[in-house]
Amino acid sequence: MSVKIALLGFGTVASGVPFLLKENAEKIYQAAQEEIEIAKVLVRDDAEKESLLAAGHDYHFVTNVDDILSDESISIVVELMGRIEPAKTFITRALEAKKHVVTANKDLLAVHGQELTAIAKKHQVALYYEAAVAGGIPILRTLVNSLASDKVTRLLGVVNGTSNFMMTKMVEEGWSYEDALAEAQRLGFAESDPTNDVDGIDAAYKMVLLSQFAFGMAVNFEDVAHKGIRSITPEDVAMAQELGYVVKLVGSIEETASGLAAEVTPTFLPKAHPLASVNGVMNAVFVESIGIGESMYYGPGAGQKPTATSVVADIIRIARRMTEGTIGKAFNEFSRPVVLSKPEDVKHHYYFSILAPDKTGQVLRLAEIFNAENISFKQILQDGTNGELARVVVITHAVSKTQLEKVVAELEAAEEFQLVNTFKVLGE
Amino acid sequence: MSVKIALLGFGTVASGVPFLLKENAEKIYQAAQEEIEIAKVLVRDDAEKESLLAAGHDYHFVTNVDDILSDESISIVVELMGRIEPAKTFITRALEAKKHVVTANKDLLAVHGQELTAIAKKHQVALYYEAAVAGGIPILRTLVNSLASDKVTRLLGVVNGTSNFMMTKMVEEGWSYEDALAEAQRLGFAESDPTNDVDGIDAAYKMVLLSQFAFGMAVNFEDVAHKGIRSITPEDVAMAQELGYVVKLVGSIEETASGLAAEVTPTFLPKAHPLASVNGVMNAVFVESIGIGESMYYGPGAGQKPTATSVVADIIRIARRMTEGTIGKAFNEFSRPVVLSKPEDVKHHYYFSILAPDKTGQVLRLAEIFNAENISFKQILQDGTNGELARVVVITHAVSKTQLEKVVAELEAAEEFQLVNTFKVLGE
Repeated sequence: MSVKIALLGFGTVASGVPFLLKENAEKIYQAAQEEIEIAKVLVRDDAEKESLLAAGHDYHFVTNVDDILSDESISIVVELMGRIEPAKTFITRALEAKKHVVTANKDLLAVHGQELTAIAKKHQVALYYEAAVAGGIPILRTLVNSLASDKVTRLLGVVNGTSNFMMTKMVEEGWSYEDALAEAQRLGFAESDPTNDVDGIDAAYKMVLLSQFAFGMAVNFEDVAHKGIRSITPEDVAMAQELGYVVKLVGSIEETASGLAAEVTPTFLPKAHPLASVNGVMNAVFVESIGIGESMYYGPGAGQKPTATSVVADIIRIARRMTEGTIGKAFNEFSRPVVLSKPEDVKHHYYFSILAPDKTGQVLRLAEIFNAENISFKQILQDGTNGELARVVVITHAVSKTQLEKVVAELEAAEEFQLVNTFKVLGE
Repeated sequence: MSVKIALLGFGTVASGVPFLLKENAEKIYQAAQEEIEIAKVLVRDDAEKESLLAAGHDYHFVTNVDDILSDESISIVVELMGRIEPAKTFITRALEAKKHVVTANKDLLAVHGQELTAIAKKHQVALYYEAAVAGGIPILRTLVNSLASDKVTRLLGVVNGTSNFMMTKMVEEGWSYEDALAEAQRLGFAESDPTNDVDGIDAAYKMVLLSQFAFGMAVNFEDVAHKGIRSITPEDVAMAQELGYVVKLVGSIEETASGLAAEVTPTFLPKAHPLASVNGVMNAVFVESIGIGESMYYGPGAGQKPTATSVVADIIRIARRMTEGTIGKAFNEFSRPVVLSKPEDVKHHYYFSILAPDKTGQVLRLAEIFNAENISFKQILQDGTNGELARVVVITHAVSKTQLEKVVAELEAAEEFQLVNTFKVLGE
């Protein structure tokens, strides 16, 4: 007997699923101990159905989801349509119909994951979504299984391929943000409205999911501060290089004395840090923990086959658990009450880029402002001048979020200074 | 009710186990759904027992393994003694007594793994050993679970921390092999007889295990060619740098048209390759596959807490499967008949370092020798001279093992040339 699955949607990722099921049939059978058969595929309309049939895709295409939900022979529904609706309704109905669900829908899970997980639990079915974070990197299941024995203290992720592609161009080839964006759009890595990628929203969704798996805390999307890469200038990038850093958009989650702090922000990474050499559209998740110490999981964050690989791994797991009679276990069982960190406990080094009048005494005046907030300098550099304004770059010792806010307000209030940029710096 | 375990040995790694069980108790309970209790600990003799008790270790220490094997309340035996005997006998007897076994004993598994796996299967108990390859990196379970849907085409590993520490000193600071070894010994990374580490034997053991998990083939240790780092000179390292490479001891397993080829050998890695920045005692496994494409798993290859983290993850998995009633599944189920590659199908670029008389016509003569074996040059460099001999460095295009053997024989036979070193070069 085979396990029958249905695909909702037959776009790029979905069509990678039959490729893997066929290409790796024997290995998949050994792991699942069942044949996996694509019984039905939901498409938008008759036109899409006809064009897929004409292109030689030999599946039972349906245009009404009820044809799948009411089909008792189908055990697993694989949602690969993306966006919130109708995906959310379809997944909910599938779970209610006691079908197991596999999805790669990060946006949906980041916002409605708790609700959907509760529905899955109620109906004792599985809801797996390895592909939702960093596509081809098996990070979620690794956190569940292999780090079950460990305590994660901080997680850092380069988890948005589009912005990392752009940052790589900006760092390695000195491109401007605008040129890097245009190239990413030309290559199809960035959409015409790149907001989700370049403003850190996509990465923040992933931090929401990673918080659950790595720290057992279901933080809300609103609790993940996010700041994107739009404001990064070639001068910032060059200065970072000079000071021994590489700038990347990094998502971070850390547990301080008072609770969890998650954010996405451009970050200066020391050149020798393993994340610093994650380039182009590649993703990586760097985990600091009391047991392993430091580990990193690197791979493609998107793409047809990488994403399909994670989806099929989920399908195999469900099929195997069906055979074993142990289905219904939540994908992630690690759960603690959400406690967010106090801002004064979240401490980092920071980079400040400040334009100041090109005359003596300005550095002293700056030092006074920082000193008033008890912030000490680690490095300070005066860089070029246009005759009237000089650029002063400061890297601080540890500064709390509270101190940061105050000093930023001070600098913005000071008429003689223009605060151009403030970025986080990963200490060594 | 709790799951009772026994530790065989209470050395460095073993004492990391109670640390994690205590420190992460709540999370471990959520994952295992049982308390895990160390019921007994086997030590060498009464003297060790007394000294551990005196040091405040409050366990039920025993000096006779029968006290553990005959104790029906103990379900899991954790072997952390190392070496072949008496570990092999103890594990065998534990499996026969229907106890599940967790071990980090790579040497034992690489040589007797098939036999022990068969015994575990016969008695329907688990034999897990995540810690046996690359200590803290959860590579084996990841291959089993997350890459179940994928087909690995090549695996490259920097899996010996000692030699990688030495190579890092040699590459980044220009140290000689001898100085690097002395420093590794001083820091306790290398033993007084460093053979296993520097000659690639330890890495070859790991390739034996990785062949099973990544390719489903139980190759023998004898089938993994190994060549160590002893012969690498500062000149080789400098030349590699100049040509854009970093030299590391790399284990590789690849599937060619005719079968599997596994070896451990110093390898020139392009500087941008993710493995090239794996430094010091850190390990990494780089996987090329048809689904994910390229992924890498990075972390500490040894050490008390990293290794204990993998060991405890195995214990949790067994405890959970005991609760679920699904225990007995082999750690790795992926299995295909072993078919080794023909040497003519194993093709790589190679680096040759050759001393030649410092007179005209030598490069032509070399070209003739390579040309006779149908090997073309990708790069050729003439480097310095001591007045009589010049060093000629060649990087070839793809060369099969058969061609390599022939050209090496030719060069060794040619009176005017002295073949100093031949290393594999990872193509881009």
